[in-house]
Amino acid sequence: MTSYKFVNKKVGVIGCPFNGGQHRNIGVDKGPTKLIEFGLLEQLQELEWEVEFDGHHKLNELRPVEDPNIGKLKKPRYVSRVAEAVSKAVESHLKRKQVALTLGGDHSLALGTVSGTLSVYPDACLIWVDAHADINTPETTKSGNLHGCPVSFLLGIAGKIPGFEWVNKIISKERLVYIGLRDVEASEKKILKQLGIKAFSMHDVDKYGIGKVVEMALDAVNPKRNLPIHLSFDVDALDPTVAPSTGTPVRGGLTFREGHYICEAVHETGCMVAVDIMVKIS
Amino acid sequence: MTSYKFVNKKVGVIGCPFNGGQHRNIGVDKGPTKLIEFGLLEQLQELEWEVEFDGHHKLNELRPVEDPNIGKLKKPRYVSRVAEAVSKAVESHLKRKQVALTLGGDHSLALGTVSGTLSVYPDACLIWVDAHADINTPETTKSGNLHGCPVSFLLGIAGKIPGFEWVNKIISKERLVYIGLRDVEASEKKILKQLGIKAFSMHDVDKYGIGKVVEMALDAVNPKRNLPIHLSFDVDALDPTVAPSTGTPVRGGLTFREGHYICEAVHETGCMVAVDIMVKIS
Amino acid sequence: MTSYKFVNKKVGVIGCPFNGGQHRNIGVDKGPTKLIEFGLLEQLQELEWEVEFDGHHKLNELRPVEDPNIGKLKKPRYVSRVAEAVSKAVESHLKRKQVALTLGGDHSLALGTVSGTLSVYPDACLIWVDAHADINTPETTKSGNLHGCPVSFLLGIAGKIPGFEWVNKIISKERLVYIGLRDVEASEKKILKQLGIKAFSMHDVDKYGIGKVVEMALDAVNPKRNLPIHLSFDVDALDPTVAPSTGTPVRGGLTFREGHYICEAVHETGCMVAVDIMVKIS
Ligand SMILES: [Mn+2]
Ligand SMILES: [Mn+2]
Ligand SMILES: [Mn+2]
Ligand SMILES: [Mn+2]
Ligand SMILES: [Mn+2]
Ligand SMILES: [Mn+2]
Repeated sequence: MTSYKFVNKKVGVIGCPFNGGQHRNIGVDKGPTKLIEFGLLEQLQELEWEVEFDGHHKLNELRPVEDPNIGKLKKPRYVSRVAEAVSKAVESHLKRKQVALTLGGDHSLALGTVSGTLSVYPDACLIWVDAHADINTPETTKSGNLHGCPVSFLLGIAGKIPGFEWVNKIISKERLVYIGLRDVEASEKKILKQLGIKAFSMHDVDKYGIGKVVEMALDAVNPKRNLPIHLSFDVDALDPTVAPSTGTPVRGGLTFREGHYICEAVHETGCMVAVDIMVKIS
Repeated sequence: MTSYKFVNKKVGVIGCPFNGGQHRNIGVDKGPTKLIEFGLLEQLQELEWEVEFDGHHKLNELRPVEDPNIGKLKKPRYVSRVAEAVSKAVESHLKRKQVALTLGGDHSLALGTVSGTLSVYPDACLIWVDAHADINTPETTKSGNLHGCPVSFLLGIAGKIPGFEWVNKIISKERLVYIGLRDVEASEKKILKQLGIKAFSMHDVDKYGIGKVVEMALDAVNPKRNLPIHLSFDVDALDPTVAPSTGTPVRGGLTFREGHYICEAVHETGCMVAVDIMVKIS
Repeated sequence: MTSYKFVNKKVGVIGCPFNGGQHRNIGVDKGPTKLIEFGLLEQLQELEWEVEFDGHHKLNELRPVEDPNIGKLKKPRYVSRVAEAVSKAVESHLKRKQVALTLGGDHSLALGTVSGTLSVYPDACLIWVDAHADINTPETTKSGNLHGCPVSFLLGIAGKIPGFEWVNKIISKERLVYIGLRDVEASEKKILKQLGIKAFSMHDVDKYGIGKVVEMALDAVNPKRNLPIHLSFDVDALDPTVAPSTGTPVRGGLTFREGHYICEAVHETGCMVAVDIMVKIS
């Protein structure tokens, strides 16, 4: 039996059907609704978790009438307002010693979820499971879609962008680790290298096996297993044969079992305080 | 080349189209027939095994006219008679220094096959490859289907059930090991824990890799590789994408290669004396 | 960043639509054309390789009018002429410090590609990724198809066959290693055993994981990582679910990720001088 170091066996579920961090308008916002419809809450209850569900947040109501680009960034005000709202929701659940489970939605939401975690647990570490590094800065992004940039904001390397002043909880680069990378841009590789951020690509998963990779990842950011963990899981880390996506699929992702194993092994530490499940178009 | 410690390079094939250990009537009984039709015997001969095939046992003729439940147990007399017949068939092949290969059929048959093995090799160990633990007792079973109970009888923890007196060869809990569990009931978890039975779940397969898991399983029950081995393989241990089943499939099972590897690695020990291949509805 | 020990970051691409090494006439010759059409050259350029493409060699023009069997060998003159031409093409690229990338075509072409490599790098080692050992001699082959024999010629154990006198660069048996074997004939097993050739089967991949297997394979033939490497990759090493073939598929092959990992890990040594990608009917 896992004993929980920071939370009670309660989970606060935050539904975030949101796709403002990218330019396409299809699919991303349906993930949370489907997960609930398919019985996620009941399954959590069967596993003896006490469940509190906020309902799906009406994030579309936060859309500003006018939202011109800031530099290359698209829909900056919309993404910022939504992320701030989600941040508050996460914070509220965490303060009541619940695990905050956010269902997205596109990965720009993690700007909010991780900020929420850092408000309550300033020493939390972040395990980012993704095919992509999502670490472009407003300078280095080509597309300007904010779902490719949240990590740069969280690390404090995004520079000052009007409207994002509320993102003032910064995670140290030593507390961040990636698992599952397989489609990283040259600009992102440069940032990862410069900052010396620990990252386990699919090449590493093949080389060492998922068991060893998760152990090494935990050793890197949480060697004594005494820090709170935020797990941000982008479903595009899974192979397209497991989790078909409507975007351009990249072969060679995690198997269903490997994805499942990561979640189980992180849970087993007893340190997990927040989880994002992002079912989105990559 | 593997050298065989207990048998000659001969295999006795026992066809058991039987589905009495469960309530559904479809599919389970067709496995053995299909395996033979698809050329199993010829393939064994190509691998230079001498093959003796009994023909398919006419197990349905053993069905009693009346067979009311005993407690929750369904079709208890039918299952018992069939298992006893299969036990004798296994015993007969083993006495002639053959490997006994039983093709099922539902897993209640293993009550018979393992009993047959224990008659000839009292110190045999049992490797149970399955998504399920099949260890419910007549008390703890919810469904009353005997295919979920054979291990409790073999361990001697089933209590006294009329008609099952012939099951009097007991395997020690130290000689039993599971590989591939992924769908174990709470009642079964309790028994496994109380008895301290060694079990490698899919989580362990992901964590250590199948090579290490099989080595650890063999070390647990047969550390000197000098005891006879009974391998009981329920095909539902394989992922539904490999071996589709007509029951409710549970994702995250063994790959074709992992299932194959288990059989090869157990064979390589030179200790294998009996194998069950159970193609059934889970 | 990989630093290259023998070549510049240039690749010479040799298109070899050829199926003379086997009796069937379908499919094998289309692989190279498709790979180019699907954008292989552009992808290499994106990875910052300088690319020189010869165009597809018109190998069919080398077909002799008369080509009776020699012993059991089919189309011996045709295969020999083609392989000799390909050998010269490989040699030419290697002499200009390029990596020679041959797109086949059936695996009899490797008689040429490896000979070309040995002309320029006599101490090269050979990593043969294949479901098959392709090591039958003109004596032991059953089918007489030369795509099942190239390794015996390269090892100098094929005997003297008229027309093959040009194959005079021999690789030492210590410099050859197999990865991925899963369908080896008895005659081939005998040869492998007699010569003590290092081979990692799918059983080994399951036992150790692909990371460890590639490491052991490199340690076996190139322990100091200072010898040039020729990688000959038969696509039938991949599982039929990954790379469907029009021949009789054999289950249990490499996953997409494992195949990819082998190529990456060999590349990372900085020793790779030649690669064959053989998309053929097995
Ligand atoms: Mn992402
Ligand atoms: Mn992603
Ligand atoms: Mn079973
Ligand atoms: Mn089962
Ligand atoms: Mn080949
Ligand atoms: Mn082949």
